[in-house]
Amino acid sequence: MKEQGSGKETAAPKLTRKKLEALLSAEFPQMFDPERGYAIERVWLGGCRLRRHFHPKSLRPGGTVSGPIIMALADVAMYVAVLSAIGWVPLAVTTNLTINFLRKPAPRDLLAEAKLLKLGKRLAVGEVGIRSVGGDELVAHATLTYSIPTAAKR
Amino acid sequence: MKEQGSGKETAAPKLTRKKLEALLSAEFPQMFDPERGYAIERVWLGGCRLRRHFHPKSLRPGGTVSGPIIMALADVAMYVAVLSAIGWVPLAVTTNLTINFLRKPAPRDLLAEAKLLKLGKRLAVGEVGIRSVGGDELVAHATLTYSIPTAAKR
Amino acid sequence: MKEQGSGKETAAPKLTRKKLEALLSAEFPQMFDPERGYAIERVWLGGCRLRRHFHPKSLRPGGTVSGPIIMALADVAMYVAVLSAIGWVPLAVTTNLTINFLRKPAPRDLLAEAKLLKLGKRLAVGEVGIRSVGGDELVAHATLTYSIPTAAKR
Amino acid sequence: MKEQGSGKETAAPKLTRKKLEALLSAEFPQMFDPERGYAIERVWLGGCRLRRHFHPKSLRPGGTVSGPIIMALADVAMYVAVLSAIGWVPLAVTTNLTINFLRKPAPRDLLAEAKLLKLGKRLAVGEVGIRSVGGDELVAHATLTYSIPTAAKR
Repeated sequence: MKEQGSGKETAAPKLTRKKLEALLSAEFPQMFDPERGYAIERVWLGGCRLRRHFHPKSLRPGGTVSGPIIMALADVAMYVAVLSAIGWVPLAVTTNLTINFLRKPAPRDLLAEAKLLKLGKRLAVGEVGIRSVGGDELVAHATLTYSIPTAAKR
Repeated sequence: MKEQGSGKETAAPKLTRKKLEALLSAEFPQMFDPERGYAIERVWLGGCRLRRHFHPKSLRPGGTVSGPIIMALADVAMYVAVLSAIGWVPLAVTTNLTINFLRKPAPRDLLAEAKLLKLGKRLAVGEVGIRSVGGDELVAHATLTYSIPTAAKR
Repeated sequence: MKEQGSGKETAAPKLTRKKLEALLSAEFPQMFDPERGYAIERVWLGGCRLRRHFHPKSLRPGGTVSGPIIMALADVAMYVAVLSAIGWVPLAVTTNLTINFLRKPAPRDLLAEAKLLKLGKRLAVGEVGIRSVGGDELVAHATLTYSIPTAAKR
Repeated sequence: MKEQGSGKETAAPKLTRKKLEALLSAEFPQMFDPERGYAIERVWLGGCRLRRHFHPKSLRPGGTVSGPIIMALADVAMYVAVLSAIGWVPLAVTTNLTINFLRKPAPRDLLAEAKLLKLGKRLAVGEVGIRSVGGDELVAHATLTYSIPTAAKR
C-alpha cells in the first residue's frame, strides 16, 4: 500500500476478517449482534468495510440515524483497519476524531469504509466514509488518529 | 453573555433545566434512564453541565469507558446547551465534531461542561470539557458545530 | 457529480481555470506569484488541483516546509474548488478546518487536490490531500467547511 | 498545573519569555519582526499569550484578516506554550490542528491565548482562543496536538 509509510510492505493484512471477528467477539461479546451490531464485510491491506445493522432504536427526531451511532461506527471501522494492519493490539486507542455530518442517513444499514492514511510506529491516521446501504452519497466523513501502545509486539 | 454574538442579550436561558428535561424525555424516552442515561445538572446562559451515569457495559478493554460513550456525551451536552439558548428546536443537528481523548476515564460517572463559543442564526459553535466525577483533569475535550434550521421560530 | 447533493447536476464547473485565475489575481495580486505563490493546475466538476511553488523561506527547523504554508495551501485549494462549483462568490469563508500532518514534506513544490464532499446552499464540505511533487504519499490531509453567503447569486 | 497530567509538577515554565524570544529569533529570524511578526506577551505554567502585529497585507476580501494568518498564529502560540513547558525542543511538530472561525476579525493586532490540556511524553494537546485587540469575543478557536520527539532531553 503506497500510503502506509512503513518501510516494509506486505501483501496481506496481518489479521483476516475471520480472525478479527473471532478476536473481537471474544473481547466485545455484543459487537456482532445481528440485530443492532456490526459486521465486517471486507478487510484489505490498509482498510476495511464495516456494516452497522439498522435498529429502530437508533432513530432520532426527523427519522434519521442518530449522530452517536454514526460516530461509533467510524471509530470501530478505524479500529478494525488499524488492528488488521498491525495485528492484535486491542489497547490501541483513539486520540482524535473529527467528523463532518453531510446528509441525513436513511433508516437503513450503514456502510463504513476505512482507509489508513498513515501507519507509523506510534500513531495511525485514517479516514472513514459512511454511506447508507444502497446510497451513493456520503452521509458522514471522519478522520481519526489512533495511538499504538509502544509495548505492542509487531 | 459576552461571547454570544447575537445583538440582544438576555439574562436567562430560554429553556430551564426542568423544561428541557420534560421536553427531551418526551422526545427521547430513555435519555434520562437513571441506570445508564444522562442527568442535566445545571443550565446557564450559554452553557450547561451534564452527567452520564456509569454502567459496567460502557467499559472497553483496559477497564475504561468507551470512546463512543464519551462522544455521545459531548454531543448531547452541546445539544442541551444549544436548545437552552435558542429554545425548543429539536431538529438542530450536529454538522461537525472534533474530539481529543486526553486521559483514561475512571469507571465512574462522567461530567460534561458545554460552553457556546458562538451563537449565530444558522450555526452554533461550542466546546465541551469532560471529566470523571471527582477528577480534576479533562478526560476529553470536544468542539462542535450545530446547524440551526432556518424555519426555527426564535 | 454524485456527491454534490444539489438537485440539478451540470456537466462542467461554473468557472474554468482561466476565468478563476483572472478573477483571483485581480482580487489577490500576489496569489500567483511564480516564485512563492500558487498555480491552478486543473479544475473539474467538484474539485481542483493546486500547486504551491517552493520557496526556501518556507522552511522550518528540520528542513521541512512549515505547517502554516501547508494549511494555507489546503485552504486556498478548497476555496478554488468551491468557487469553481458555485461561481464567483469571493466572500465565501472558511468556518472549520481540520488538518492532519502525516509526513515531512520534501523541500519541493506541493500539490493539493481538493474534492467537494457536499455542496449545500449554505455550507460546502470538502477534503484536501497534499503531496510533495514527485511523491506518492500524502504529507497532509485536511477537511474544510466553507460558509456560502445567502445573498450569493447562483 | 492541574491539567498537566505529568506526575511531577513544577512551579514555573521551563523557559521564560526572554529565553524563548532569544532562542526562537535565532531559529526564525523574522518571527518577531515588529511590523508583521509576533510578540510573546506572557508565558505561564501551561500557557502563553502571543500577539500578531497587524499588517495591511494580511487583509482578504471583506476587509478582514485572512484565515491562514489566524491559523499560523494558533500554531505558533501552541508551539510557544509547548516549548515553555518542555524546554527547548524545536523539532516538536504539529500533528493535528482543528480551527473554528467564529467572527470576522477587525483590521487590528490579534491576541492568541494558548492553554495546554494535556502534556504527555509523546503528545501535547492544547487549545488556543484568538481575539482582536480590544475585543471581548473570540474570532477563532483552535485545538492542536503536537508530537514530541522521543530523543528530547527533558
